[in-house]
Amino acid sequence: MPVNLVAPDPAALYPVAGVELGFAEAGIRKAHRRDLMLMHLAPGTRVAGVFTQNSFAAAPVQVCRRHLGAGAAIRALVVNAGNANCGTGERGLKAAEASCAAVAKLVGCASTEVLPFSTGVILEHLPIDRIEAALPRCVASLGADHWADAAAAIMTTDTVSKGVSVRQSIGGRNVTVTGIAKGVGMLQPNMATMLAYVATDAAVAADALHQLVRQVADVSFNRVTVDGDTSTNDSFILIATGAAGGAEITVDHPDFAALRSAVERVAIPLAQAIARDGEGATKFITVQVEAAADADEALRVARGIANSPLVKTAFFASDPNLGRLLMAIGNAGVPDLDTSRVNLWLGDVQVIESGGRAASYVEADGARVMAPDEITVRVSLGRGGAGTTVWTCDFSYDYVKINAEYRT
Amino acid sequence: MPVNLVAPDPAALYPVAGVELGFAEAGIRKAHRRDLMLMHLAPGTRVAGVFTQNSFAAAPVQVCRRHLGAGAAIRALVVNAGNANCGTGERGLKAAEASCAAVAKLVGCASTEVLPFSTGVILEHLPIDRIEAALPRCVASLGADHWADAAAAIMTTDTVSKGVSVRQSIGGRNVTVTGIAKGVGMLQPNMATMLAYVATDAAVAADALHQLVRQVADVSFNRVTVDGDTSTNDSFILIATGAAGGAEITVDHPDFAALRSAVERVAIPLAQAIARDGEGATKFITVQVEAAADADEALRVARGIANSPLVKTAFFASDPNLGRLLMAIGNAGVPDLDTSRVNLWLGDVQVIESGGRAASYVEADGARVMAPDEITVRVSLGRGGAGTTVWTCDFSYDYVKINAEYRT
Repeated sequence: MPVNLVAPDPAALYPVAGVELGFAEAGIRKAHRRDLMLMHLAPGTRVAGVFTQNSFAAAPVQVCRRHLGAGAAIRALVVNAGNANCGTGERGLKAAEASCAAVAKLVGCASTEVLPFSTGVILEHLPIDRIEAALPRCVASLGADHWADAAAAIMTTDTVSKGVSVRQSIGGRNVTVTGIAKGVGMLQPNMATMLAYVATDAAVAADALHQLVRQVADVSFNRVTVDGDTSTNDSFILIATGAAGGAEITVDHPDFAALRSAVERVAIPLAQAIARDGEGATKFITVQVEAAADADEALRVARGIANSPLVKTAFFASDPNLGRLLMAIGNAGVPDLDTSRVNLWLGDVQVIESGGRAASYVEADGARVMAPDEITVRVSLGRGGAGTTVWTCDFSYDYVKINAEYRT
Repeated sequence: MPVNLVAPDPAALYPVAGVELGFAEAGIRKAHRRDLMLMHLAPGTRVAGVFTQNSFAAAPVQVCRRHLGAGAAIRALVVNAGNANCGTGERGLKAAEASCAAVAKLVGCASTEVLPFSTGVILEHLPIDRIEAALPRCVASLGADHWADAAAAIMTTDTVSKGVSVRQSIGGRNVTVTGIAKGVGMLQPNMATMLAYVATDAAVAADALHQLVRQVADVSFNRVTVDGDTSTNDSFILIATGAAGGAEITVDHPDFAALRSAVERVAIPLAQAIARDGEGATKFITVQVEAAADADEALRVARGIANSPLVKTAFFASDPNLGRLLMAIGNAGVPDLDTSRVNLWLGDVQVIESGGRAASYVEADGARVMAPDEITVRVSLGRGGAGTTVWTCDFSYDYVKINAEYRT
C-alpha cells in the first residue's frame, strides 16, 4: 500500500507543447499489459540527463550517454518495462541500438537522435523482435495528452503510476512542466529501477539545461532511498521543447531560478512518490539534517538514518527507539563528531538533547509522534551551516515478502 | 534458529592459567538471569583491546580506552548485560568508573586496573547500585573452569552462548587460547552489541599483543556483518597471562605467527558464530572477494554484497538472483571497474562470466547451490592480487519481527 499516494488524475497532467506520447503492449515479459512507451519530441527540443553511478550501468544507459554526449538533437525516447537489458554485453548494446534504429525509421530521424531506456529483469536478453513489432502501434497512438498512459506503461512493480504537473508564469510566459516516474518496487525482483522524465515547454539554453538536471536531481531523486541499493538503470531525463517561446533561459538569466523552482515542484513530489510506493512501505519518513559542517556529511548522516535496517524496522513498529537513531548518527563516519552537540527531534518532540535523552522527553510523546504514517526526523549536528533532506519509507514484513518471492 | 551452531560443551572450554571467572544475577533488566560477569586476572597479565568506531562510543568504552591508554596493568574485567550505558553523558561515565571502583575494592587493586563493559539498552542509566550489590557474589563464584557460565552471563539476545578453545604447542610449550563472545541478536532491541574476550596463557610482549589484537580483529570480528549497523559498545579484548612460561613473544619472534594462528583459530569461529546466530538467520553466507586492486576495495565489494537487503532476502528465498549480486558489486564504488573482467561463483557453479551470465549456467545449478543453509559467494574482480572474506546471514521475516517488536 503506497503511503498517501494515488495515481494522478489524467486531466491534471498538462500536455507540454512539443511532446507526444504513445504506448503499446509488446509482451516483453507478460502478455496483455502496456510495457512499451514512446515519447516523440518536436524539432529544436533540448534534452539533458543524469544516470546511475552503478558500475554495471545497463546497455541502454551506455547508449543514452553516448547519444547525449555526441551532442545530436534528440527527437525520441523509447522505454520498455519487463527487461533491464543489463549484464548483457555486446549483444545488449546492439539490442539497445536496434531499438533506436527502429524508432528512427518510424519517426524519421537519425538513430543517434533516439534515447533508449529499459527497466525490469537483469541478465536476460532484450526481446528486440517484440519491441520492433510493437513500435508501429506506439507511433499510431502518439498524442499530447497521453502522459497518464505513459506513466502506467513504464511501471514494473509500482503499485500506482506517478505523475506531477505544474503551470507557472516565468518571464511573463505561461510555462508548463510535466513529469512522470517509476519507482523502486520489487513485486517481481530485479526491478529496482528508477526512471523519471520531466518535460517543459520553456526555452532553455543547452548549458542551463545540463546544470538544471543536475541541480534538480540533487534535491529530488538523489534524496530518495528505499534500501540503499542503487539500480543499474536509474535515469532522470529533463526535456525542454521551447514551444512556450521567448529567449532561451541561460544560467545567468533572471528567470533561471523561477524555472528551477517550477521543475523542482514536479521532481520533488515525483521523488517522494517513489518512497511512498517503496517496497512494503507503511510509513513515509522525512529525515532532515541541519548544522552539518558541509553538505557531504549532512547527506551521510541523513542516509545513515534512512538506510539503517534497525531504524527502519523501528518506524514500521511505530517505536520511538532512540538508541537506534543515536547509533545510526554515530555510524555515519562524521570525523571528530562532538556527540554532546547533537540534538534530535521526532516531529515536534525533542528526544535527544546534547547527545543524551532529552530531559523533557517522556515515552508517551515519542509514541504519539511515531504513530502517524508520515514522520519527520530532524537532527542538528552543531557543527556548521550545511543541511539536507532525505525521504524514505519503513521496513516491513512485506519488504521481505516482496523481495524473497521467487522471480516468477 | 542459529545456523549450525550449538552452545559450547563446558568441558571443551579449557581453563587459561591466570584467569578466573565469576557471575551473578544482578537484576539489571530482568530478574532471575545471570547478567553480571567478572574476569579476574593474575598479576603480570597483559591486556589489549579494539573498540567500536561509532561516534557515540558508550561510557564503558570510553573508560576502557582511558584505562588501557594509561598503561596500567589490568587485573579485572566487569561485564553487565541488559544496559549499554550509552548516550548517558557524565552520569554514565561516573557509573562506569563506579563499577571499576567497586571491583577494585573487592579484588584488591586500583580502579584504573579494571575494565568495564556494558551491553543492552541504549540511553538508559546504568543501575550501578544493583551492580555493586551483586559484585560480592561474582567474586565468591570466581573459578578457572567457568568459561561456559561466563559466556552465558554476557548474552542478551543471543539464542546460544558462544565459546571456542584451542590448545597448541608454541615454541615447545603447551599454550591454551580460550574465547567467548556475544553477538548481534535483537530479541530485545537496542542490544546490537558485540563483545568478545579471548585469553591465552602465552607470554606475549606488550607491543606484540597490541599488534595481535588488531591483526586478529581484522580477519575475524571486523569481517562479520548482520545488517551493517555498528553498535556503540563493540569491544574485542585479548588477554595474555604469561602463565605458560617462557620468554615473551615479540612481533619479530618466530613464534609470533604460530600464536596469531592459534588466536585466529578461536576468534574466527567466534566471529562466524555471531553471523550464524544473527537476527532471524536461516542461512550462513561466506562472501569471498579475490583479484581486487587492494584490500580496501575487496572489503567494500564483500560488504556491499553482504549488506545488501536485496541480496540477503534472495538468500532467504534460496533464489539465485544473479542480477542483485551484479547490482551490489556495481554499487560498491570501485573506481573504473571493468565489468567485463568480473566473474562470480555460487558454491562451485560459475554464474557470472566476464560481467554477464555465464554461458554454462543453468538455473537448476543455481537452485541447487542456493538450497543448503551454508552458501559461499566468490567474486573475482580481475584487477589485482588483494582479497578478503566476510561472513553474514540472510534477511528473513524474523529479522523484521525481532526488530519491530516493542522494547519489552
